[in-house]
Amino acid sequence: MDVSAGVFRDGMSCLGAAVSLITSGGPEGRHGMTASAVCSITDSPPTLLVCVNQKNRSHDVFNGNGNLCVNVLAGRHVALAEAFAGRGDAGRFETGDWTTLETGAPVLADAVVAFDCRIMERRAIGTHSVFYARVVALLKPAQAAETVIWFDRRYHPLKAAPPEQGAAAPANQRG
Amino acid sequence: MDVSAGVFRDGMSCLGAAVSLITSGGPEGRHGMTASAVCSITDSPPTLLVCVNQKNRSHDVFNGNGNLCVNVLAGRHVALAEAFAGRGDAGRFETGDWTTLETGAPVLADAVVAFDCRIMERRAIGTHSVFYARVVALLKPAQAAETVIWFDRRYHPLKAAPPEQGAAAPANQRG
Repeated sequence: MDVSAGVFRDGMSCLGAAVSLITSGGPEGRHGMTASAVCSITDSPPTLLVCVNQKNRSHDVFNGNGNLCVNVLAGRHVALAEAFAGRGDAGRFETGDWTTLETGAPVLADAVVAFDCRIMERRAIGTHSVFYARVVALLKPAQAAETVIWFDRRYHPLKAAPPEQGAAAPANQRG
Repeated sequence: MDVSAGVFRDGMSCLGAAVSLITSGGPEGRHGMTASAVCSITDSPPTLLVCVNQKNRSHDVFNGNGNLCVNVLAGRHVALAEAFAGRGDAGRFETGDWTTLETGAPVLADAVVAFDCRIMERRAIGTHSVFYARVVALLKPAQAAETVIWFDRRYHPLKAAPPEQGAAAPANQRG
């Protein structure tokens, strides 16, 4: 039994994942893309991985610069996610408050969390590359945690506080 | 600037991810674990990856059997997720409707989607291994899509239909 690319993609649309901007800066210039294929590997040493299509322009920029920053997005960033996916009217880096930490990769100042990484290794698998990246700096603004999840081919904003199941009254209300 | 393991884990708690049961069956027996470190790599050929702590008993079972199934969970499966995380009173495989597809790895019949895989390669990174797994069969029950996301150290059930922003009336209601 073979699993076709279409059946696989349809199945993968049901694997929810956070939406991030993966950015890089250095000799190859500044570039970035929207991605959901990001995964924690280990905290010893702090390492994550990012999967990137080899045809994506960002792929060679990441490879050449040797760095990448994973900027995890919230619901308020959907327009930015669209811009970095090459959709919409806004150019990449035209909006958003950008800074840098250790590597020189662009860091979104109000990201849910940003992981500034040096690329340690690249492994090609079919059409894609897996980048193994060591986290060398981290930005986590102190504010109420929320994020945005890509699931069923849509954005789903998600707040840290769990939803009240069927409750109409606000939580923590005092009688 | 060093990023400590604790700071990294705290940052990673803000990277939302789907909750899956990763299962395996074969000569090493049947075993499974709850995981959120699952990532699509490419559809050509259909391949995903799973990161597993080398100290986890499942690690050697996956390695020995050469197969694994990624069973993506919905909100109704939280008790099952807890059982496969080694928490709660229920044993693994005691509840749930289990079947198999191609490899012999246990497949949860009412998973949101289940990817039955042969392990192609393992890469050790610090405390963990990254398993590269080829999807050889896929189960996707035809029912309303919902899932459960691990974010901010909590389960968040998520439905495919987008939430109505501040709307009290049902969508698609005709006037």
